[in-house]
Amino acid sequence: VNSFTGDLRFSATAARARHSAIADLMVRALVRPGTLSLAAGFTDNAVLPVSIVRDALAHMPAGGGCLQYGSNQGRPTLREAIAAHIGSQHGERPDAVGADGIVMTNGSQQALYLLAQVLCNPGDIVLVESPTYFVVFDVLAGLGIEAVELPMDAAGQVDVAGTGELFERLRAEGRLERVKMAYFITYFSNPSAVSMTEGVKRALGSLVAQHVPWLVTIEDTAYRDLYFSRPYPAASMLSLGEWTGLPLVQTGSFSKCFSPGIRLGFFATNVPALVEKTMCVKGQQDFGSANISQWIAEFAMTRGLFDPFVAGLRVHYQAKAKALDDALGAGGLKALGWRWEMPEGGLMLWLKGPTGLDTGMTGAFCRACMDSEVLYVPGDFCYANAASAPRCNVRLSIGAPPVEDLREAARRFALAAQTVLRG
Amino acid sequence: VNSFTGDLRFSATAARARHSAIADLMVRALVRPGTLSLAAGFTDNAVLPVSIVRDALAHMPAGGGCLQYGSNQGRPTLREAIAAHIGSQHGERPDAVGADGIVMTNGSQQALYLLAQVLCNPGDIVLVESPTYFVVFDVLAGLGIEAVELPMDAAGQVDVAGTGELFERLRAEGRLERVKMAYFITYFSNPSAVSMTEGVKRALGSLVAQHVPWLVTIEDTAYRDLYFSRPYPAASMLSLGEWTGLPLVQTGSFSKCFSPGIRLGFFATNVPALVEKTMCVKGQQDFGSANISQWIAEFAMTRGLFDPFVAGLRVHYQAKAKALDDALGAGGLKALGWRWEMPEGGLMLWLKGPTGLDTGMTGAFCRACMDSEVLYVPGDFCYANAASAPRCNVRLSIGAPPVEDLREAARRFALAAQTVLRG
Repeated sequence: VNSFTGDLRFSATAARARHSAIADLMVRALVRPGTLSLAAGFTDNAVLPVSIVRDALAHMPAGGGCLQYGSNQGRPTLREAIAAHIGSQHGERPDAVGADGIVMTNGSQQALYLLAQVLCNPGDIVLVESPTYFVVFDVLAGLGIEAVELPMDAAGQVDVAGTGELFERLRAEGRLERVKMAYFITYFSNPSAVSMTEGVKRALGSLVAQHVPWLVTIEDTAYRDLYFSRPYPAASMLSLGEWTGLPLVQTGSFSKCFSPGIRLGFFATNVPALVEKTMCVKGQQDFGSANISQWIAEFAMTRGLFDPFVAGLRVHYQAKAKALDDALGAGGLKALGWRWEMPEGGLMLWLKGPTGLDTGMTGAFCRACMDSEVLYVPGDFCYANAASAPRCNVRLSIGAPPVEDLREAARRFALAAQTVLRG
Repeated sequence: VNSFTGDLRFSATAARARHSAIADLMVRALVRPGTLSLAAGFTDNAVLPVSIVRDALAHMPAGGGCLQYGSNQGRPTLREAIAAHIGSQHGERPDAVGADGIVMTNGSQQALYLLAQVLCNPGDIVLVESPTYFVVFDVLAGLGIEAVELPMDAAGQVDVAGTGELFERLRAEGRLERVKMAYFITYFSNPSAVSMTEGVKRALGSLVAQHVPWLVTIEDTAYRDLYFSRPYPAASMLSLGEWTGLPLVQTGSFSKCFSPGIRLGFFATNVPALVEKTMCVKGQQDFGSANISQWIAEFAMTRGLFDPFVAGLRVHYQAKAKALDDALGAGGLKALGWRWEMPEGGLMLWLKGPTGLDTGMTGAFCRACMDSEVLYVPGDFCYANAASAPRCNVRLSIGAPPVEDLREAARRFALAAQTVLRG
């Protein structure tokens, strides 16, 4: 076999590339097949839209069109359906966004990557919540962009006054001009399960208008549809008056609320130039997302199949969240000083361990969990600033494991917590 | 509606982004619906794998697995099938590449983008044939990379001696170190329909080893399966001794030989570090290509459906190529000084107009074609160096139009040629 074993001359992009932390965790799970993972962000195989997908392919557009190239921006009817869906959600203006302002992407991940590419040069700054979705750090680091944490309050909301002070500090340091984007997960966040209140959104809009009117604010709504009992009572920024005239992007995904395997997401924006610029770069990368995936989503949304499907997911994941919540409680964690809340939507439970506990990868608790064959995401992965990250938190996902595995995983987790406490 | 009309601060990447030439051509076609396009690189809707796709979805892996996230590198069984397919082609070593050396991508386009990202910094050089696939220029320009033309001989083969002189010249200019990649379309090229002879491949291998052993050579095989009467009699570089120990990449695509709408391609390499680095960047962009698309391709390849399907495409496109070839001949183009050859595979006819004719977008011939409602790709789009590009060539695609449209388009094209000649 012809194999090359010399040294290649890689680019600066390659030099910045790093393996994602979650990928390493997944590898550990593969190495020990008995391990139960509460770490992976997968959804539940038991509730994938198998029959909808088959129906969609049975009703392909004439001429097999969804097996042909599509457009770079994405199927117009799908984009119209998404615009209508956004406009129909709790508290939204019906015309919050138009189909022209929507670009279909390979998961919302690609939306984030493209937006960072067209807005940021190496050395620029993106503001993030703490904690936030840790994959964002890989995206930003890969493009040479600095992630700067926003101050948060005890309820897990962005501290608006503190953010104003941050802007002042960045201005004094001559760094404010480098702040190009802010990234918020505003509904049932990964990892914290917290939703941003409408009051905080409005206050942030006023603050951005005052300090950084060029800032492109990205509102990630990947989990918005996955509420349990009721929609979270806050409109998206696109519908809030305080944000009028400010550049906004809303990202969404079919991964969590439909099927990760069709690899389809989108962004919606009120900035035509962002559509234009990202489409140029997307054209360089792939010419447009898979037409077959777009057709499946379009079929589901336009035939009235999407809403009932998501309604079923809500019941399913609420039951799973409750099962994990109950099992953690039954494991005696609260008596050991652990604190968490039953989430109101999404796929995550966010646990705060007792003061002084180190949940990091190198700590005794993580080793105890590995020994007990249960995986979690260490909370410190979810903070931009590793040095100041709290090291007592844990992200648990209810996505993939069936209820019985959630219960067993909770049992093992609680066992590890007790083992470590006994020292 | 909340819309942002101010000026945003875009990145250097955004500043380099430009609309692709072909996109502009497509828009023109949309504006005049009666227009027949020989410009678009679409395939034929009449021969899309509709029933294979439906069967694949009827036989989804247990648990709906192809609707779940997949791996970043891609489905192992699919990669094994691709490795076996490469190894089974004309002249190849059976073990030319292993599944570990294959990465699934969103079309081969993303493979090219990722490779350019991990290998090149802005200002670096990629060597290209002249003519070559023009979308490559958008990719390279978007990343700030310079495309440098290789000298070609009269048969459309790379001029090996001239390439050696080019290396010497680049070395003398202090630019040789910046040459990071070479990009060749080695089977039934887009646009020229030329295949690279095995002799040229071997001579290039020796030349690269001598002058630029760090150079990553990309062999684009998108059209290899689409031969008409017989496979083109040249092994890929991965199987040729002259290339042993040199870094090689082979890109492939399911777009032309199966379905563009599943948006699936791959690259195969003998450089493990290239797999590792591109996967890091792909992880930032999308976590892996659509699992559903990969399953469809895997199903087709592992159930013995792919080879018979491609065999059918060969017959279909050969007949279409012959229909266009005949109709152009019947239109009297040869008497007007036009020259071309019936291709032996692929989806393109490459025509050389009479000396002095300008086929560029702003010329009289292009206007005459627009007036006659027929579109082609001006040949000068396919050269990296616009200033020296021959302006008398034309790329015609047999992909999308049915035979009757090919004939009518050829009639219009010949009419325009006569009109311009009469001037």
